[in-house]
Amino acid sequence: MDSRSPDPLVLFMPSGKRGRFPVGTPVLDAARQLGVYVESVCGGRATCGRCQIEVQEGNFAKHKIVSSLDHISARGAKEDRYDRVRGLPEGRRLSCSATILGDLVIDVPQDTVVNAQVVRKAATDRVIERNSAIQMCYVEVEQPDMHHPTGDLERLKAALEKDWGWKDLRVASHLIPEVQKILRKENWCVTAAIHKDMDFSRATLIALYPGLKNEAYGIACDIGSTTIAMHLVSLLSGRLVASSGTSNPQIRFGEDLMSRVSYVMMNPDGREAMTKAVREAVNGLIGKVCAEGGVSRDDIFDTVFVGNPIMHHLFLGIDPTELGQAPFALAVSGAVQGWAPEIGIEANRGARFYILPCIAGHVGADAAGATLSEGPHRQDRMMLLVDVGTNAEIVLGNSDRVVAASSPTGPAFEGAEISSGQRAAPGAIERVRIDPDTLEPKYRVIGVDKWSDEDGFEEAAAAVGVTGICGSAIIEVVAEMYLSGIISEDGVIDGALASRSPRILQNGRTFSYLLRDGEQRITVTQNDVRAIQLAKAALYAGVKLLMEKQGVETVDTIRFAGAFGSFIDPKYAMVLGLIPDCDLDEVKAVGNAAGTGALMALLNRNHRREIEQTVRRIEKIETALEPHFQQLFIDAMALPNKVDPFPKLSAAVKLPPRKTVSAEGVAGDATPRRRSREERAARRERG
Amino acid sequence: MDSRSPDPLVLFMPSGKRGRFPVGTPVLDAARQLGVYVESVCGGRATCGRCQIEVQEGNFAKHKIVSSLDHISARGAKEDRYDRVRGLPEGRRLSCSATILGDLVIDVPQDTVVNAQVVRKAATDRVIERNSAIQMCYVEVEQPDMHHPTGDLERLKAALEKDWGWKDLRVASHLIPEVQKILRKENWCVTAAIHKDMDFSRATLIALYPGLKNEAYGIACDIGSTTIAMHLVSLLSGRLVASSGTSNPQIRFGEDLMSRVSYVMMNPDGREAMTKAVREAVNGLIGKVCAEGGVSRDDIFDTVFVGNPIMHHLFLGIDPTELGQAPFALAVSGAVQGWAPEIGIEANRGARFYILPCIAGHVGADAAGATLSEGPHRQDRMMLLVDVGTNAEIVLGNSDRVVAASSPTGPAFEGAEISSGQRAAPGAIERVRIDPDTLEPKYRVIGVDKWSDEDGFEEAAAAVGVTGICGSAIIEVVAEMYLSGIISEDGVIDGALASRSPRILQNGRTFSYLLRDGEQRITVTQNDVRAIQLAKAALYAGVKLLMEKQGVETVDTIRFAGAFGSFIDPKYAMVLGLIPDCDLDEVKAVGNAAGTGALMALLNRNHRREIEQTVRRIEKIETALEPHFQQLFIDAMALPNKVDPFPKLSAAVKLPPRKTVSAEGVAGDATPRRRSREERAARRERG
Repeated sequence: MDSRSPDPLVLFMPSGKRGRFPVGTPVLDAARQLGVYVESVCGGRATCGRCQIEVQEGNFAKHKIVSSLDHISARGAKEDRYDRVRGLPEGRRLSCSATILGDLVIDVPQDTVVNAQVVRKAATDRVIERNSAIQMCYVEVEQPDMHHPTGDLERLKAALEKDWGWKDLRVASHLIPEVQKILRKENWCVTAAIHKDMDFSRATLIALYPGLKNEAYGIACDIGSTTIAMHLVSLLSGRLVASSGTSNPQIRFGEDLMSRVSYVMMNPDGREAMTKAVREAVNGLIGKVCAEGGVSRDDIFDTVFVGNPIMHHLFLGIDPTELGQAPFALAVSGAVQGWAPEIGIEANRGARFYILPCIAGHVGADAAGATLSEGPHRQDRMMLLVDVGTNAEIVLGNSDRVVAASSPTGPAFEGAEISSGQRAAPGAIERVRIDPDTLEPKYRVIGVDKWSDEDGFEEAAAAVGVTGICGSAIIEVVAEMYLSGIISEDGVIDGALASRSPRILQNGRTFSYLLRDGEQRITVTQNDVRAIQLAKAALYAGVKLLMEKQGVETVDTIRFAGAFGSFIDPKYAMVLGLIPDCDLDEVKAVGNAAGTGALMALLNRNHRREIEQTVRRIEKIETALEPHFQQLFIDAMALPNKVDPFPKLSAAVKLPPRKTVSAEGVAGDATPRRRSREERAARRERG
Repeated sequence: MDSRSPDPLVLFMPSGKRGRFPVGTPVLDAARQLGVYVESVCGGRATCGRCQIEVQEGNFAKHKIVSSLDHISARGAKEDRYDRVRGLPEGRRLSCSATILGDLVIDVPQDTVVNAQVVRKAATDRVIERNSAIQMCYVEVEQPDMHHPTGDLERLKAALEKDWGWKDLRVASHLIPEVQKILRKENWCVTAAIHKDMDFSRATLIALYPGLKNEAYGIACDIGSTTIAMHLVSLLSGRLVASSGTSNPQIRFGEDLMSRVSYVMMNPDGREAMTKAVREAVNGLIGKVCAEGGVSRDDIFDTVFVGNPIMHHLFLGIDPTELGQAPFALAVSGAVQGWAPEIGIEANRGARFYILPCIAGHVGADAAGATLSEGPHRQDRMMLLVDVGTNAEIVLGNSDRVVAASSPTGPAFEGAEISSGQRAAPGAIERVRIDPDTLEPKYRVIGVDKWSDEDGFEEAAAAVGVTGICGSAIIEVVAEMYLSGIISEDGVIDGALASRSPRILQNGRTFSYLLRDGEQRITVTQNDVRAIQLAKAALYAGVKLLMEKQGVETVDTIRFAGAFGSFIDPKYAMVLGLIPDCDLDEVKAVGNAAGTGALMALLNRNHRREIEQTVRRIEKIETALEPHFQQLFIDAMALPNKVDPFPKLSAAVKLPPRKTVSAEGVAGDATPRRRSREERAARRERG
């Protein structure tokens, strides 16, 4: 090297961080100095193989770097040994051993940081940078010496401070009786599992292994009222090892949340039984993902959970009774963390748990997880994030300000209270189209490949039996009924069409639409439409309330989280007026965003601080306390809403012309209509 | 008040702290500003009654204060109410309510801070200032509000921060499911037990009670190999509620420490069985002191333990095998703390434990406790602190430097290996005097009021039966034998005296002294003298080694800790040469100093930091590694030591003239003599 030339320039990808380092600097040291995350367990001894990198060769003109294999030290004895013992893939180098000789572009392999299955938009939107709460640290400990009679534990701590910089480490109590044997098993060489997140300032030794321990796993879990979903990931590589789900066994105590709260109130040991049930299910699921991934549950050191407030409380062993009545007081709203065994989690004995904060009594850690995942607070555009269940949890905001509320949508979106409603299962209608001219429907059935108007459909359908309509199809069929002019924007089935189509049937004073005739008649009744209207009005009114709080007329982008959001077509959701007007391209289903948020908090503890700070900042709106909410609810009954223009939707979808059937003229027993009439009268008096 | 005059001057006793405060300042605030410790649970609401003070009236010329009852506000409604409900003793005031009107001398009653039974020298040496790790804090919590949906726990934490300044409180996990019910029981008024010592920086909420909880207790416990001793104290007043002891049930696994280590090595579940035994005994003792004091064990929030390294390890559930063999590695040498239930302590579920640090593999937390109690590091004079058992733990130092060692005295001081030795029990000779002219003894027997030469002794003695010599008397009889010329400074019983006295008996090649004839002959044999010589030589050699390390020829003051120290007469200990020459007034038995140290660490967490820092600073001397130790041991066989002059002892006690019986001339089978001869030969060769 010419001594007058500057130090070599090294660029790390994909982070893009760059810097100059003296010739001979190990690549790992350069990465650390730049804050590029490269894992290392063995502390630079070239034994763990975690610090692998690749050199990208070529002329990177944009970066003014010519990177070449000549610019990195030749493979030395340590890497050769590692290759012999454990195998080093072609092109890979150990960054602790390879040193910088000239300009380099270094690729830090991200394995599958978070793969597409988990974060649907990972490729376009973001990569979860790894910075988990667990660090594996290999050390060689000084042997005892009668001249300096410190304890074995103190010498272990001294080694961890010397090699890894851990000062004033705390030690999990259960390890104290184990330390001496573990230290002596592999000649005073051990790997310590360090947890860095416990109290944000001090780190804790939570597990200890003889020799080199090169594996560490974590789980991220979303405890839903119906389904519990779990991801198992390697905390060292970020690799998603397995994902699985199971139904929440608490269902036997009550289908929905409020019936579970009632069960606790009526049964002295109800809380205990439900806590036990959910913890057993979580442990069972841990067993399942571990079996799938070939991982021992003892190698799980960290666990992150999200759930709605009632699931959150029951999982923590807290009586949820207060959440069933005003003022809906959470026992604890902040993030909760502790030792996993304290809440019955079967993992490593020193494993920790972390539960994301709750936003409010009806907006739980699951909404916090979805917020973390979708990040309204991380961007400038106005983002609407909705997670629809029995309650809709609604978050609206951008980097300036975030507001949140929940709205009682009821169970209609889940197919309950719908005459032909059923769970999404073989035989359920899942897609519907109605011809606006003939009013004839076509549909698809779960378990049948063809549409109903295709040849061979009936044969195939006969095999599974067509039994009902699932949640997503209910949205579609009502929207299609509106688009084809069967119902007005007020939701009234137009009885006059009965003369034009045999699909319009009269039932006493109201009409219904015959979706399928046959052994089992599947119809959409006026009451069904009303139930959907009530549910969507609750959601839309909550959204509108938050838009008013934000002082915006439109939103820039919409995220549908949760299972419901995954199955419905955003177009139909908007046609029905569940959500406000928006470019259809900007309406996205993001799947289990709550679970993704849990995964982010598992893989990077900075995300824990991020969501804790964000939740503190979120303004919580209690719809029940907003005098305006009832009016918004009434106004939102129409589809799409009479009050609000939907210019973007209108541009994309041909909406029918407005009809003039007045609300007062609606026949039928729809309670909400009556309520709405009373409200309107009251409003006239007030106004 | 004349506005030009300075603010009133207030002097607090017994601390002597003083300061000026504006008229109207509550006395409690003044005390806090000066750092005078006045307890308060209710936070100034005049309900807990913990902050009582008294005004001293009179002209305190030395302090230039005229203190008068006119200088404090008249008793107000709050104090009247407290008096009606709970009673306020004559002259007492609640310092939270009473305000300063003029110059005052305020007496802060110390209750029985630590009474004389616990700290024998408390009256003269020190008072344990109270600053326990537990603080009881009464707060009134804001009720939940749907507009600000924070959790109940968060509002509790906010109240504790607002009223008491606790920032960033941690919460014991087991409380989280309890918080809501407790808050609602007494209308959102609760008392929180806060533990301040866990990680030295952050405080933790460990217990929570509805309404005002005005009691908090702690235990200090010394786990000895033979006896477990415990004190129960009020952490709020410092009052010693009860003290008790029990024998260590581990004795059934082995009399002495090494036999217990062997038991663990030989039995797979030996460690577990011994841990269980000692924990059960500790829990039994907690029950005993609680019953005695009328205290519920649920009201115990803090526990402090000391013990020798093997007791320390077994109590913590650590296998002590490593302590039974070089290099005598402690599993953990620093202070250990944690949740009391983690080590099986049955107290409040949120109670903590703290175990003092160990100094070295043979110098345990008990020696640390004794050091904390006697405080060589707190004063300028050279203090020798010895705790004699099977091992003598020796600490020597002053505020400049402290050194410590243990020395293997063996069991002779406890009466083992002595032909007529027995435990201190009725029938055991406990005091001995020998007439130097007639060589006739007189003695006292446990259970008999008279000396053996008094009228009626034999009748009384016959009732109990005289069966042997206990530990303290063994020291006395050998010392008296020396003072009366029966044995030389080399420890040889002078057979020539057999002609002068029938008390000198010949047994083969050696002689013995007949202490009592009768049904059961009680003699002191040449071997008995040898055993005592060996034991005292070990102790003295250890002391000498430390004196050499310190570079001193004499010590200024000596403390005998432990049961042995309590029963022996310091004069005889020095005549025998157990301890170096010193003013006899400066040799003091301090009883269970280890337990007193535990009590200090319980009552004042600053003492925890003090002993942790001191132990780190103590230089540990391993006698086995000191080539010089063997020679010191040999030299120390003589009584009082041939090598060292004992001028102070000589001035106080008439020592016999030196005899000329040479070591080589000694008959008998005394192994140490043979060893000593070999050593001397070796030394001559080396020299």
